[in-house]
Amino acid sequence: MDIREALRELAARKPLIHCISNIVSANDCANLLLAVGASPMMALAEEEMAEIAAISSAAVLNTGTPDAQRFRACALRGEWANRLHQPCVLDPVGVGASEWRFKNVRALLEMFRPDVVRVNLSEARALLGAFGEERGVDSEAGDIARAEAAARALAQQLSCTVLLSGAQDFVSDGARIARFDGGSALCARLTGSGCMLSALCGAFAAITPDAFTAASLAAAHWKNCAARAEAQTAGAGPLAFRAALIDGAGAI
Amino acid sequence: MDIREALRELAARKPLIHCISNIVSANDCANLLLAVGASPMMALAEEEMAEIAAISSAAVLNTGTPDAQRFRACALRGEWANRLHQPCVLDPVGVGASEWRFKNVRALLEMFRPDVVRVNLSEARALLGAFGEERGVDSEAGDIARAEAAARALAQQLSCTVLLSGAQDFVSDGARIARFDGGSALCARLTGSGCMLSALCGAFAAITPDAFTAASLAAAHWKNCAARAEAQTAGAGPLAFRAALIDGAGAI
Amino acid sequence: MDIREALRELAARKPLIHCISNIVSANDCANLLLAVGASPMMALAEEEMAEIAAISSAAVLNTGTPDAQRFRACALRGEWANRLHQPCVLDPVGVGASEWRFKNVRALLEMFRPDVVRVNLSEARALLGAFGEERGVDSEAGDIARAEAAARALAQQLSCTVLLSGAQDFVSDGARIARFDGGSALCARLTGSGCMLSALCGAFAAITPDAFTAASLAAAHWKNCAARAEAQTAGAGPLAFRAALIDGAGAI
Repeated sequence: MDIREALRELAARKPLIHCISNIVSANDCANLLLAVGASPMMALAEEEMAEIAAISSAAVLNTGTPDAQRFRACALRGEWANRLHQPCVLDPVGVGASEWRFKNVRALLEMFRPDVVRVNLSEARALLGAFGEERGVDSEAGDIARAEAAARALAQQLSCTVLLSGAQDFVSDGARIARFDGGSALCARLTGSGCMLSALCGAFAAITPDAFTAASLAAAHWKNCAARAEAQTAGAGPLAFRAALIDGAGAI
Repeated sequence: MDIREALRELAARKPLIHCISNIVSANDCANLLLAVGASPMMALAEEEMAEIAAISSAAVLNTGTPDAQRFRACALRGEWANRLHQPCVLDPVGVGASEWRFKNVRALLEMFRPDVVRVNLSEARALLGAFGEERGVDSEAGDIARAEAAARALAQQLSCTVLLSGAQDFVSDGARIARFDGGSALCARLTGSGCMLSALCGAFAAITPDAFTAASLAAAHWKNCAARAEAQTAGAGPLAFRAALIDGAGAI
Repeated sequence: MDIREALRELAARKPLIHCISNIVSANDCANLLLAVGASPMMALAEEEMAEIAAISSAAVLNTGTPDAQRFRACALRGEWANRLHQPCVLDPVGVGASEWRFKNVRALLEMFRPDVVRVNLSEARALLGAFGEERGVDSEAGDIARAEAAARALAQQLSCTVLLSGAQDFVSDGARIARFDGGSALCARLTGSGCMLSALCGAFAAITPDAFTAASLAAAHWKNCAARAEAQTAGAGPLAFRAALIDGAGAI
């Protein structure tokens, strides 16, 4: 399945993507999902997690601006995704920022198995440190080699697909690994660009059974969208870039 | 009162519109209210609902991204609106998405009477189903006829004005019914467009004593704004459309 | 230190600015901080306040869309800022809107000492009323003189720097006072413009030890950004203005 086919599928099926989102990027993620043809639903009450799971095609669990309530909702929702054999993306925002986040994310990973974990390098290393693997990654190697090694190691640890995004994106399921270049440095200057990429993984996971393929489609498409948006807005700044990025994401 | 007069009144009086909002559309709703000359206040703590009610000219209760806290705040705030004879708009976002949402929204409707309920067709049908009326609406008729029938039936059930928005908007108070055409299909691709329409109902309700008139002004103005915004942005995408939509809403 | 140097410092150091933010302006504040070269972190769980404090260069405590949880987080975070001798900005959004907000903000001010309090005139007067000073400010004087007097009186009361923003901004530490003209009337039509100014205070406070200097840099820069953004967007409306405002904030 290529990106063109994937976007056509999304437009045809309009899968409901349930997001547990945060107060920073909820609006951007909903608009991005709409732009690519999916149907977003932002919901986080424990009381409705089972029912929302039943009507969704995928779950995107983002632990940004976390509190105990959000973590409980993510735990419940992840378990339902596994039970229903429904694709589940985990975005453990800033997992290394506090011991409390780290413990809560680790607890999530013990309760359910995400299909895709979307992280940046420092989040990947925080998670790997948790599993006693940090040293292997924190080597003399350059950033690119470290990112590649971290993506693969984390995928092996978690037995799922990892999309490690940055200047280069790496997608690995532990065995396979794919690299995606291009994109735009402006992504690092735009809040929520990582959250949106995670949402995109959820959309593609809803229409393809293979998590590695879904994450690879998301990485490739996002790199393309970012490069185009940067070219279109020519240094105007992050908000102009965001508009072009989201508006361009639905163009086939 | 026509839209021109209504916008002039808003600019002159700058009524405080209190919104219980959600994490997706709070920013958009606040900006829209400012654009049309109103003064938005986003607040959701039960502890201050009575005091905020006392200084507001209207309440807009939006149950998107709900949790138990938001529902309690809506209940309290709706009761205060009734007690103070203050206009109250209810937007029961995704009320059919879960039994839990449905029960909570129904509980709200037992605790206070909103002046305007703003819904889309599926939300209207979920609410009507609750009152044993779904069959009447879910007929052989086409979408437009079903929307019209649902708006009228729901207004009768709830004894208030219903604004049912979609490709066509219908406003009914049970007796009267008005239809609004035009607008833009891009509204369905922009998150928060319905929430913003509900906020607009609140703004107009603050300056006119008749809820049917307020909702009709909101529907008419929003259709005009959307048509203009689509023409201005010429398919650039939902974020360009949003900027034109909000920025154009204050133009008389 | 002038603005050019300050922006260069931010770009070089990328200080982590921890924001307790609200559901309306969290996205805008994060994007503004990124635009000026800082590294924003939005977090509000009590469980991680100590750890987040330890890795931050400044705290921006915004009490918009408040609830008991947010106030507890602000209290904890403010205490940690004081303990760590870390700059702390308080933005007591709508402090006069309810007795409940007022009591909670006053409680915060008893628990820790902010370095900068960013308010508008009505918030300043609400706080001054609390300290029995309202009469001195609410005089026959015009708005500008009242704003100037309120900024100075509040700075003296709170023993910190006050940035009182409006058509004119005043920065005072009780002894010194500086006035900043210019800017754009569109700031009053854009939600979150005050919150973003507070975030900017936090960014500059992270790179200069003097709170009066930091707040003055923020006021001066924001006035410049707003004037430029208005000129660039030529009355297009608040959302076009916002994009130009944030995108222009990083230009040296």
